[in-house]
Amino acid sequence: MATDKKNGFFISLEGSDGSGKTTQLQLLKKHFENRMDVVFTREPGGTRIGEIIRDLILDPQNIDMTPRAEAFLYAASRAQHVDEFIVPNLEAGRTVITDRYVDSSIAYQGYGHQLGVLVEKINEKAVAGLMPDLTIFLNLDPRVGRQRALDNRTPDRLELFKDSFHKRVYDGYLSIIENNKNRILVIDASDTIDNVHKAIVDAIEDLISTRGRS
Amino acid sequence: MATDKKNGFFISLEGSDGSGKTTQLQLLKKHFENRMDVVFTREPGGTRIGEIIRDLILDPQNIDMTPRAEAFLYAASRAQHVDEFIVPNLEAGRTVITDRYVDSSIAYQGYGHQLGVLVEKINEKAVAGLMPDLTIFLNLDPRVGRQRALDNRTPDRLELFKDSFHKRVYDGYLSIIENNKNRILVIDASDTIDNVHKAIVDAIEDLISTRGRS
Repeated sequence: MATDKKNGFFISLEGSDGSGKTTQLQLLKKHFENRMDVVFTREPGGTRIGEIIRDLILDPQNIDMTPRAEAFLYAASRAQHVDEFIVPNLEAGRTVITDRYVDSSIAYQGYGHQLGVLVEKINEKAVAGLMPDLTIFLNLDPRVGRQRALDNRTPDRLELFKDSFHKRVYDGYLSIIENNKNRILVIDASDTIDNVHKAIVDAIEDLISTRGRS
Repeated sequence: MATDKKNGFFISLEGSDGSGKTTQLQLLKKHFENRMDVVFTREPGGTRIGEIIRDLILDPQNIDMTPRAEAFLYAASRAQHVDEFIVPNLEAGRTVITDRYVDSSIAYQGYGHQLGVLVEKINEKAVAGLMPDLTIFLNLDPRVGRQRALDNRTPDRLELFKDSFHKRVYDGYLSIIENNKNRILVIDASDTIDNVHKAIVDAIEDLISTRGRS
């Protein structure tokens, strides 16, 4: 176990490209901006070392990076994140909300790159027992999401992979959800921005209040 | 297995700080400079991506890097190295001589940082079954070696760890050797540079000729 005195709640937000995750995170940050006991972070990244690794992974120039090296780099960023940021904040009683966590690696590297169980084994070590109390998955048809993502901004290295890759990623998420029904809440991301925001806030407030911390 | 049609020989050179590994590698490169079927490489590094990771690991400014993140970064560099450089060269029938390989991770991260079996588990995945045919360990009392290393040049981040760390690394190597007697040849690095060089060359030439490739 990464920690044995975990007092805060740990929440991850997941979604395939174009699912509106970035927009929803902005709204969520605004919603919690006066709550000193709620902190936001992201993966890869979340720490100084992790952000350097993030730049390395996402740099479109690094086309020579092998899928196995990529999987280990995500795990490196995650190990640093768990040890330096997530666990200390949870131990201090804060709720930690992260933009992506281990499910992303399993969906993108395990299913997308078809590295399979290798990614699960590596990440078992990277998370050291620390799994989210709640994972929110923003669900959107990958063809719709891809078009949205490519319309909106300059794509990073992963976003440049072709459609078949992103289809496998999406199918990967569906499998992960199937096997983790108690942890993962699926929210329909084709609904209005406001409705999606309300659904996310409700889920998080529910979790926090359930354990008497609202 | 990383490869099922491995035709060349795979040799790693290991040693604790100050054991003369760098000097011996220079002499070895000179010895084999006309042999197109012998290639040299190093870890961390050995590939463009791997060298970027190497800079990240060794940069003395990165004092905030956690030992677990460091272990995954070494594994990332190694996975890239195996897939992009070592396996293709072995498959092409070349002898690959690497300055450090998996034993370094187990000695430095497993024993030095006391991460133990975590490092072995991660590296089982990183090497994907590819272990050296021969490992040469340059053996020197760590107190002598440390003084040599610090006298000679500006220390990198790992060299700055204190003596107790380097003592554990050395003891780690001794354990690895004990458990891998058939693979690891121990050479006394307190002997003259010429004698050490001869011993290394003899071991490599022996290996190559044994299988009819001299």
